[in-house]
Amino acid sequence: MKVIHDAKELQQTALALRAQGKTIALVPTMGNLHAGHASLMDAARSRADVLIVSVFVNPTQFGPNEDYEKYPRTLDADCEVCRAHGVDILFSPAPATIYAPTFSTYVTESACSQGLCGRSRPTHFRGVCTIVNILFNLALPHVAVFGQKDAQQVAVLKRMVQDLHIPVEMAVAPIVRESDGLALSSRNQYLSPEERAVAPEIRAALREISEKIAAGTESAETLAEFFMNKLGANPLFEPEYIEIVDNATMLPLKKITRGNTLIAVAVRMTQSRTRLIDNIVA
Amino acid sequence: MKVIHDAKELQQTALALRAQGKTIALVPTMGNLHAGHASLMDAARSRADVLIVSVFVNPTQFGPNEDYEKYPRTLDADCEVCRAHGVDILFSPAPATIYAPTFSTYVTESACSQGLCGRSRPTHFRGVCTIVNILFNLALPHVAVFGQKDAQQVAVLKRMVQDLHIPVEMAVAPIVRESDGLALSSRNQYLSPEERAVAPEIRAALREISEKIAAGTESAETLAEFFMNKLGANPLFEPEYIEIVDNATMLPLKKITRGNTLIAVAVRMTQSRTRLIDNIVA
Repeated sequence: MKVIHDAKELQQTALALRAQGKTIALVPTMGNLHAGHASLMDAARSRADVLIVSVFVNPTQFGPNEDYEKYPRTLDADCEVCRAHGVDILFSPAPATIYAPTFSTYVTESACSQGLCGRSRPTHFRGVCTIVNILFNLALPHVAVFGQKDAQQVAVLKRMVQDLHIPVEMAVAPIVRESDGLALSSRNQYLSPEERAVAPEIRAALREISEKIAAGTESAETLAEFFMNKLGANPLFEPEYIEIVDNATMLPLKKITRGNTLIAVAVRMTQSRTRLIDNIVA
Repeated sequence: MKVIHDAKELQQTALALRAQGKTIALVPTMGNLHAGHASLMDAARSRADVLIVSVFVNPTQFGPNEDYEKYPRTLDADCEVCRAHGVDILFSPAPATIYAPTFSTYVTESACSQGLCGRSRPTHFRGVCTIVNILFNLALPHVAVFGQKDAQQVAVLKRMVQDLHIPVEMAVAPIVRESDGLALSSRNQYLSPEERAVAPEIRAALREISEKIAAGTESAETLAEFFMNKLGANPLFEPEYIEIVDNATMLPLKKITRGNTLIAVAVRMTQSRTRLIDNIVA
């Protein structure tokens, strides 16, 4: 496995690979790799000749009061995960390699990015679209793999790729969970032991919603109320939102339409202030 | 010469050309091609195996009260110009092929685009950055050629290419002028005969500024005043701006720094309301 830190070097390498007729798969990550990321690598590995994983804690997708500084950076361990999952190139740039001091260009998606996480994180998806655009221009992938865990990110990036006619196939891999149901996230390590013990209730509430839908409940309002009451009853949870939206447009639905409805939630844990997200497609 | 109307077909063609090891040059235009555009084609022709010219009157770079509807569309004549200048592929898409009804992604440059034309045309450069990004994703050029006539556009697009790490070489071709000095522009045909007769005075005033600089004038304010008074004396001219800026950043300079100073002007002609731009680098 080759580790590349320089942006131009990655681009030259990708151009040379393409000139040789090789296909490239990219898995963009912020590092601190866990089994969720590994599943993306495994999904990507079979789709192309060369697998590139980027590890970059992207400053432009963090808000001013978010956890950019304390976000876990564990490059040595990340290298091991990448090696174990057949990664060919690990791209780990310094922020200054990506963003020049005069940096002034952003890519903004203004429809799918407005609700859900976009409401409380107003510049988050601008940062995500911008860095993914940059990573696509550097790694020149034929296919990129993202996790369903960040369902809104998937919708925003798919829209960006469609709108800008970017020649990259977008693949999505399912959420990976702990055995108790908690969705894997680098932010789980911020949780206090008490928070960690109750955190699987987020997933459990989503499963109950699935069951209610299977049993015939159609009203988004009813399901949202159920979730807010269920989680709100425990002072360790501060539910930020539950949104029931069209899975492609992220526009709110009043009524569940089976197969195309995303139910996405964000919950603030009150001890550590950690923000967890999860979702199901009904 | 092949004429392509479909976006996907252009992208597939470009991917196939790259797979064959061919280099691609792109000249993006809004059509109504004149000798200025032809000079861009000639500059591009020698730089790559395959020359693609796009002809697309891009709706997103026109403001609500601008000339999008009446902008001249002359595809048959444009084909002849392209054929005569060795163009391999003419890309002429319908707007609906480029912009889906759900289109919601824009590329915005927020430093170089603020002054000069950006002041009176607040969404213009957002439209330019977005369409050029799209055209790059469709034509996949190694090099793209733009005209110095649109000096601010050049600065904005160079910044975009740098910031987003787009693997395209940016080439700039000099302004082409009528024998009386008027910079070629598709908008010159909007001019009344009286306006056309006096329009070369814009260029003449810029030349006088060059001479003043050569003779030692350093104050941007003095030069700007000279221009405003000179043009303002004729009621056919309504000078919109003269800006004396750093040629790369578009930031205002108080003092001329030889070799790196752009002197850019926009003038509204009062009979036809045509807006003309011109510039020199001092």
